[in-house]
Amino acid sequence: MEGKSMKKISRFSIALTLFMAMFAGPTSAQHVPSQGALDELVKMYCAAWNEPDAQHRRELLEKVWASEGTYTDPQSHVEGREALVEHIGRFLKNSPGARIIQSSRADFHHGMFRFAWKFVGRDGKTVMEGIDFGALGPDGKLQRIVGFFGSIKPL
Amino acid sequence: MEGKSMKKISRFSIALTLFMAMFAGPTSAQHVPSQGALDELVKMYCAAWNEPDAQHRRELLEKVWASEGTYTDPQSHVEGREALVEHIGRFLKNSPGARIIQSSRADFHHGMFRFAWKFVGRDGKTVMEGIDFGALGPDGKLQRIVGFFGSIKPL
Repeated sequence: MEGKSMKKISRFSIALTLFMAMFAGPTSAQHVPSQGALDELVKMYCAAWNEPDAQHRRELLEKVWASEGTYTDPQSHVEGREALVEHIGRFLKNSPGARIIQSSRADFHHGMFRFAWKFVGRDGKTVMEGIDFGALGPDGKLQRIVGFFGSIKPL
Repeated sequence: MEGKSMKKISRFSIALTLFMAMFAGPTSAQHVPSQGALDELVKMYCAAWNEPDAQHRRELLEKVWASEGTYTDPQSHVEGREALVEHIGRFLKNSPGARIIQSSRADFHHGMFRFAWKFVGRDGKTVMEGIDFGALGPDGKLQRIVGFFGSIKPL
């Protein structure tokens, strides 16, 4: 029973985070970043994925990632900036020498963006490509990212 | 003042819709569709984009689109199934003979999906490619789509 109600609370908390994240909503004309600002945001976010020092990583994410932002990919879901600092730490520990490299510019509309990236191994070879979709929060920071791994599946 | 408070109400209503849409949330194990069910959902959704008869289009969308679902692309944002029925009607009127063709399978995780499509003109030539990213609602219907036009921009 306790597990169940924890799960309910956790689901509610996720929903509440998303609710707050999305409140600026598609009709809001606020916080439309310039291409340059968006590129800078994504560049710094990717830099955080390549920063092995937790405190440096935290400082990078403080600049670009909302404190309650959520990160989701096919294998993980983490809520909050500090959880992302730790999640990236685990990734870097498990894949020493690997790098996450932005491989496209970002485009943006109605508060939402997309950009492509590559996961490059220690030997410089691409391990995986992917695309991140996401939402900017009312403060102009990354509020949510949902990533998809690999090329899109052909019909 | 009235415009302002209407805008506030509208923003609140969007946020509430998203809140409800996302309530099943990333941690929920419910409503994970099979690949076949997801393909069928996307196939029927694309069929609605090619259905000139409003009543037939409505019937298709009733099967796959949540009644409060939101559709957003770089040029438009519509809320609710009936608004999407009308939005597609305007698209088909403005682009006679055009077709929207699914050009990839969909993939799915944590309640979210992506798939690619092509906008093909009357002459059979591709006018534009795009990718749709979205969320399934707790009833397994399409609850939200955010589309991006064109190829992702190279660095």
